[in-house]
Amino acid sequence: MKGTPPVNTHPHERPRILLHDPTLRDGHHAVGHHLDAYATAANAAAVPVVEVGHGNGLGASSLQIGRSKLDDATMLTTVREALTSSRMGVFMAPGWGTSDDLQAAVHHGADIVRIAAHCTEADVTERHLGVVRDLGAEAQGVLLMSHMTGPGDLAEQCALMVKFGAQAVGIMDSAGYYLPSDVTERVHAIADAVGVPVIFHGHNNLGLAVANSLAAVDAGATVIDATARGFGAGAGNTQLEVLVAVLERRGAETGIGLREVLAAADVAADRLMEAPPSIDSIAVASGLAGVFSGFRRPVLQTAQAEGVDPIDLFLALGERQVVAGQEDLIGVVARQLKPAAR
Amino acid sequence: MKGTPPVNTHPHERPRILLHDPTLRDGHHAVGHHLDAYATAANAAAVPVVEVGHGNGLGASSLQIGRSKLDDATMLTTVREALTSSRMGVFMAPGWGTSDDLQAAVHHGADIVRIAAHCTEADVTERHLGVVRDLGAEAQGVLLMSHMTGPGDLAEQCALMVKFGAQAVGIMDSAGYYLPSDVTERVHAIADAVGVPVIFHGHNNLGLAVANSLAAVDAGATVIDATARGFGAGAGNTQLEVLVAVLERRGAETGIGLREVLAAADVAADRLMEAPPSIDSIAVASGLAGVFSGFRRPVLQTAQAEGVDPIDLFLALGERQVVAGQEDLIGVVARQLKPAAR
Repeated sequence: MKGTPPVNTHPHERPRILLHDPTLRDGHHAVGHHLDAYATAANAAAVPVVEVGHGNGLGASSLQIGRSKLDDATMLTTVREALTSSRMGVFMAPGWGTSDDLQAAVHHGADIVRIAAHCTEADVTERHLGVVRDLGAEAQGVLLMSHMTGPGDLAEQCALMVKFGAQAVGIMDSAGYYLPSDVTERVHAIADAVGVPVIFHGHNNLGLAVANSLAAVDAGATVIDATARGFGAGAGNTQLEVLVAVLERRGAETGIGLREVLAAADVAADRLMEAPPSIDSIAVASGLAGVFSGFRRPVLQTAQAEGVDPIDLFLALGERQVVAGQEDLIGVVARQLKPAAR
Repeated sequence: MKGTPPVNTHPHERPRILLHDPTLRDGHHAVGHHLDAYATAANAAAVPVVEVGHGNGLGASSLQIGRSKLDDATMLTTVREALTSSRMGVFMAPGWGTSDDLQAAVHHGADIVRIAAHCTEADVTERHLGVVRDLGAEAQGVLLMSHMTGPGDLAEQCALMVKFGAQAVGIMDSAGYYLPSDVTERVHAIADAVGVPVIFHGHNNLGLAVANSLAAVDAGATVIDATARGFGAGAGNTQLEVLVAVLERRGAETGIGLREVLAAADVAADRLMEAPPSIDSIAVASGLAGVFSGFRRPVLQTAQAEGVDPIDLFLALGERQVVAGQEDLIGVVARQLKPAAR
């Protein structure tokens, strides 16, 4: 089950879009038999890639950002056993995982390993992309918070990851900030610059995750991330079963059975989530501000503690162009927003 | 407060988009002080038009399709008192309301009256559009289930409603079927054919309500319907506060305060709905099939009674091209789907 299936090798056939499903990466609060139930249903729907692990990736389970109910090894082996045709993916974000985590993940059956970096820092992926290639898994590189730089820069950063060994590269809309036209120009630039499949990962803060994914496909992306019922933090991700339906209407081939993926989404709704994601006012402000959706919880906590409006705080953090790792700035900016003490 | 404000009279200014908010038309299960709370918040956000009434419009409250908690007169006078700057709208669908209902609505302070017709039956709107004009309110005409015919036909039907006195005309995506390209060609055709503002009303079954509304704006529509948190039956409508944020990013002027409309959406979430709408598997099937979302409840009931899969039933009804009023076909088609009795 290793290796990349051919993507668009025959230009006169219907376009082939590979859907990559990280439902179980944002599902790290789930217990074993729920992971297994969803993985079995996704496999039955012929979802090509099922990604699993802590929301922040390999090695990220910690007191500070939240512990998984299950350790990486248990999650990976549980899902691996359920997948007979789907490939298994894992994700590693900068600062959390190590080469040992990569080795363990491939040992537990990961077919695809994604190495992430902030959108202007692709140089940090070199070592880990090399490790993944040496381990014989498929290596992919993705750029986080990709709205913070332009098409030319993203194309250069992606080309760099290809040089480091990435077999697919692309961008994540980590803040849910993009409009379709933003995606079009960025994906076009990347597709022009690299000779490997291009990845797009959307978030739904501005209600545009499905439309942005269509824009990405039209601009040349062939690997699109989407989760059952849009499961994910905050406003959630691109909704997998909706995207399957829309791509079917558009005449694009995903290889996924519509009836089966709707059934898988029902399993996810019943077993993995308290309620499906929705776009509340905080999610709109966060997307408009272009702030990483992982800031949601600390921003709400700090706003309450300091007595400031969380929407003001998100917009002010957006003006400061904060990125993950700068959580300390939340308190600083909150205190600047408070009216001067009498 | 009567009469249409100028829309795009100065082509070199920022485009002016009028958002029309039917949150309280789908909110007919609400009681008086909840209507009042939302209308007050929408008015404070400078939402231009607040539409109120039973989900199916004036005169539709009935045992068969559901009774409002409040009668039309109480809903209208409650909302009227809360609106100091927003205009009040009402809706009348074919077969439910009468000229007496129109007269009562304008008497109770309706500024804008929408007359709806099936997409190929604009001729039925002539008398009621005339009544609305005679009463001195603004008359608008909208075509339901508009995906069931093409751009040229829709343009002709809209032109007919303008001839009958409609001061704005447009289309509703009653089944949540459209992709953005469908909207583009239809709205272009209508905008080319008429000299009055063009209306678009989206549904979110395929996750595209916001993107379809943007496509409508780009194609020349200047009146866009949207509801707080997307409140509405099934997968819901275009989400008002999200559309305000996205149009602000696009440089289009709505006149609505972002902070205030986010606050109004929070009021709607707290007071009007048990949970925000989400796109479940039934909603995806219904949208893909192009079946009126009002069929949801009877389809689910019939599927259970007859022991057939509701998704099969929706897809079969879509192939039959059923429209509102043909609910009797649900049972007929369900029985055809059952395996032959032994």
